[in-house]
Amino acid sequence: MTSSASRAQALNRSAFRCFRDISTRWMDNDAYGHVNNVVYYQWFDTAVNAHLIDNGALDIHHGETIGLVVETHCNYFSPLAFPQTVQVGLRVARIGSSSVRYELGVFAQADEWTAAHGHFIHVYVDKATRRPVSQLPDVLKQVLEQLT
Amino acid sequence: MTSSASRAQALNRSAFRCFRDISTRWMDNDAYGHVNNVVYYQWFDTAVNAHLIDNGALDIHHGETIGLVVETHCNYFSPLAFPQTVQVGLRVARIGSSSVRYELGVFAQADEWTAAHGHFIHVYVDKATRRPVSQLPDVLKQVLEQLT
Amino acid sequence: MTSSASRAQALNRSAFRCFRDISTRWMDNDAYGHVNNVVYYQWFDTAVNAHLIDNGALDIHHGETIGLVVETHCNYFSPLAFPQTVQVGLRVARIGSSSVRYELGVFAQADEWTAAHGHFIHVYVDKATRRPVSQLPDVLKQVLEQLT
Amino acid sequence: MTSSASRAQALNRSAFRCFRDISTRWMDNDAYGHVNNVVYYQWFDTAVNAHLIDNGALDIHHGETIGLVVETHCNYFSPLAFPQTVQVGLRVARIGSSSVRYELGVFAQADEWTAAHGHFIHVYVDKATRRPVSQLPDVLKQVLEQLT
Repeated sequence: MTSSASRAQALNRSAFRCFRDISTRWMDNDAYGHVNNVVYYQWFDTAVNAHLIDNGALDIHHGETIGLVVETHCNYFSPLAFPQTVQVGLRVARIGSSSVRYELGVFAQADEWTAAHGHFIHVYVDKATRRPVSQLPDVLKQVLEQLT
Repeated sequence: MTSSASRAQALNRSAFRCFRDISTRWMDNDAYGHVNNVVYYQWFDTAVNAHLIDNGALDIHHGETIGLVVETHCNYFSPLAFPQTVQVGLRVARIGSSSVRYELGVFAQADEWTAAHGHFIHVYVDKATRRPVSQLPDVLKQVLEQLT
Repeated sequence: MTSSASRAQALNRSAFRCFRDISTRWMDNDAYGHVNNVVYYQWFDTAVNAHLIDNGALDIHHGETIGLVVETHCNYFSPLAFPQTVQVGLRVARIGSSSVRYELGVFAQADEWTAAHGHFIHVYVDKATRRPVSQLPDVLKQVLEQLT
Repeated sequence: MTSSASRAQALNRSAFRCFRDISTRWMDNDAYGHVNNVVYYQWFDTAVNAHLIDNGALDIHHGETIGLVVETHCNYFSPLAFPQTVQVGLRVARIGSSSVRYELGVFAQADEWTAAHGHFIHVYVDKATRRPVSQLPDVLKQVLEQLT
C-alpha cells in the first residue's frame, strides 16, 4: 500500500460535530456486493447540503450564493453494504474568505470508528457569475462556526 | 396528455401494507431542481429488497434464488425534492408460480396520497442457471402473503 | 409470469427512427453482475434529452419550456453488463397538444432485437409556472415529427 | 481557497498513457446544471475497470483477484455538462506488491488540459478471503506496466 494510504487511520465519533442518518439503497452495492467507493461522495454531498439547508444557510432554488466543489478525498477502512442505515459525521476544519473545508466520516450504526472518511472543499460563488464571493454570507458563517 | 396517463390517479396510503423511510440525496435532484424520474425506481428496488432481506426471504450473497426484474412502471403526480425523507409503501398484487407483482407508492411525509406510484414484476430464478424456479421458496411465499 | 409481462415481446431495430450510443459504467452493474433495471431509465432520459438538445429543441439552462415526466415503463428481455456500449433507439408514438409519448429500445451492439424497451411520457410545461403549455413550441414539434 | 486546492494545477494530455470516451448522462448534471463532483468518480471506476477487462487483466464474474478501493481523490478545475462526451486519461503512478495507484484525468473533447483529475488506489485481494494478495497476478502486472 502507498505511504499515503497507510498513514490514514480510522477516526473516532468524537472527531465530528453533528451526525445525519442516511439509508442505503440497493444500487449502492456494486458487483462485489458492497457499497461502491463512489457512493460515499453522494453521502458527503448529502450531509453537507442538508445541514446547510436545514439551518437556513443554503437555498438551492433562490439563493444567490452556491458552493462549488474544488477538491474531494476519501479513505476507506471497512466495507459497508445495503441494507443498513449509515451515519455521516460532519465537522468544519477551515473557514476561508470564500472557501470551506468540510471533513466527513461514515459510520456503521454501532461503530465508534469511521468505516471511511474524507473531506471536500467548497468554494462559494455568486450563482450568476460563478465568481468566488469576497466573503461568506453571515448566516453561512454562523452555521459553519458551530461545526468547528 | 395521453389517455393512459390521464387514467392514472394518486392512491391513498390505505392501498399499501407496509412503509419504509428513505432519505433523499443531493444527487436525486436533477437540473430542474426536483427528484428525477429515474430515482423513484431506485427507491422501489430498495423498498422491496430491504423488506425481503429484513424478513429473511432474500440473501443477496448466499441465497440460491434471486429476483430478476422483467417489468417496471411508474406514474408521477407531484414533485419531490431533496432534502426530505420520503416513505415508500409496498403491497403484493399477484403471486405466481415463479413471479411476483409488487406495487409501490411514494409519499411525502405528511401526505395521504401518492406523489408517484408504480409496480415492478420480479421473476425468481436460480442464481446459477438464471432459469425461473418451479415454485417460490416457502419463506418468500410467507413474507409475500403478508403483503397482499 | 404475469400475463402482462408475457405479452411483451422484443422489438426489431426497424421500430426505431434514430439511435444513440451510450457507454456503460462500472456502477451500472448491481450485486447480481448485470445492469440494474433502474439504469435503463437513465439511458432513456439521456437519449431523449440529448436528441432534443442536439437538434435545438431543448435548452436546459435558458429555455422557457421544459419536459416533465408523468409516466415511464420498461420491459426487460435479456441482460446487459458493463463493459459494453449499448445503443438506444428512439421513436415518437404520439404528439399531443402539450404531451409527447417517446418509445425507446435498448440494443446490445450486434443485436437486432431489444434487450429491453419501454416508453415515457413528457408533458411540456412553462419553466416558471410548471403549467402545461397550450401548444408545443414549433421547433420541438418539427424535431418530434421526424421521429414518428 | 485553501492552500491545498490552490496548489493543484490542470494537467496536460501528455501526462496520461491511454484514453477512453465516456458519454455523459442527463442525471450527471445536478441542480446547478453541471456535472456533479461525484460523477467523476464513476468515470474513474469505469475507465480503470474497462481497461483491465478489455486487456484480460480482470474478470468480474470468475476472477479470483479483485481490486478494492482504499483511497480516492479529485481536484476540479472547470465545469462539464451533459450532453457532451468526455475523455478519461489513465496512467499508473505506482505498482506495489498488492496495490496500484492509478491517476486519472477528465478532458472535454477539444481540450488539452484536465477539467478535473485525481487518483485512486486499488488493493488487490483474494475474492473469497478479501485478504491482499502476496503479489499481483502476472497478466495484471503486464497491463499495468504499459500504463506507467
